Amino acid sequence: MYSPSIDKLITALKKLPSVGEHTAERYVFYWLKAGKKPVTELMLALKNLINNVKSCETCWNFSDTNPCTICQNPKREHTTLCIVTESQDLMVIERSAEYSGDYFVLRGLVDPTDPESLNYTKIKELLARCRDPKEKIKEVILALNPTLVGDTTMMYLEKELKKCNPSLTITRLARGLPLGADLRYADEITLGSAIKNRTKK
Amino acid sequence: MYSPSIDKLITALKKLPSVGEHTAERYVFYWLKAGKKPVTELMLALKNLINNVKSCETCWNFSDTNPCTICQNPKREHTTLCIVTESQDLMVIERSAEYSGDYFVLRGLVDPTDPESLNYTKIKELLARCRDPKEKIKEVILALNPTLVGDTTMMYLEKELKKCNPSLTITRLARGLPLGADLRYADEITLGSAIKNRTKK
Repeated sequence: MYSPSIDKLITALKKLPSVGEHTAERYVFYWLKAGKKPVTELMLALKNLINNVKSCETCWNFSDTNPCTICQNPKREHTTLCIVTESQDLMVIERSAEYSGDYFVLRGLVDPTDPESLNYTKIKELLARCRDPKEKIKEVILALNPTLVGDTTMMYLEKELKKCNPSLTITRLARGLPLGADLRYADEITLGSAIKNRTKK
Repeated sequence: MYSPSIDKLITALKKLPSVGEHTAERYVFYWLKAGKKPVTELMLALKNLINNVKSCETCWNFSDTNPCTICQNPKREHTTLCIVTESQDLMVIERSAEYSGDYFVLRGLVDPTDPESLNYTKIKELLARCRDPKEKIKEVILALNPTLVGDTTMMYLEKELKKCNPSLTITRLARGLPLGADLRYADEITLGSAIKNRTKK
């Protein structure tokens, strides 16, 4: 219905997550009104994305370099490995400024209802890395979301990692009350963990 | 914090309406996982947008041609002009398949609190077109949103259009109950109009 150039751009934008006809139209008309500069900048940024960004073959994070800056950084503790689902989770942990070890991005979770899901993830690469005596990994932190699929994946990883390297310390993120939480609305499992793992002031 | 190529793309995307850090990240990681094809398609669509799309200097709609396909179409009634705020409004009226006249896209509204707003819109071009005896315009439909700024603009246009061409018929979209509405929740002005302008079956 729109002119062909506008229609084609709307179709391309509708592939993005949570973007429908209406949102795509808003983006297109924003660009049409904003002039050529922001569109040229975006095109250049997209070009750089497909030309420069690659997978770091050590931690499977997306990066401009392979290995990425975290894996290359000599100041980080390369003996600890924090396992996250996606790159965005890695960034959230980095922003907390509480962790100085290495990462490993799984690129997905093991879904028990989908046997193919095991092949999409980088679990094989993780196990190979933990098996490698040159890597000297002492601790693996399982930092996946505590959901059904996340917990299943963590249980699976725990079992497989123990098989690969029995001396490995395997930990999970603490379960407890988040900042600003209300005791009365906390679920029993969370509150139970918070009492059991109470910390000394 | 992300690698430079990812960060630059996030910055470029954050300029879009209602797009913040989180949404921009989701788009970037969607593209990184989707591979080169969708990104190349999007870049091509963006390139076509800035190279091909222009303003139709008759109706000020965005189009691949100038004049646009609607203004060029000999089957449309060129004596009726429907005034809309933006190109998206034109498309909504086209989809209703109830109108076969020409359009005029104002590209904004007259905001009484901002004296500059008069210059951003295409009101001058509209008045020139209605004044032109070669155009033979008989009716102008004011199809702006019935909001405070929309109503102000329609009142202003009515006054100015009458000055330009006293023989012009000026109409507004009917006010009444929308499909599926509940009488009990209709406001008094809408309901009053619906009674006053009741239609014969």
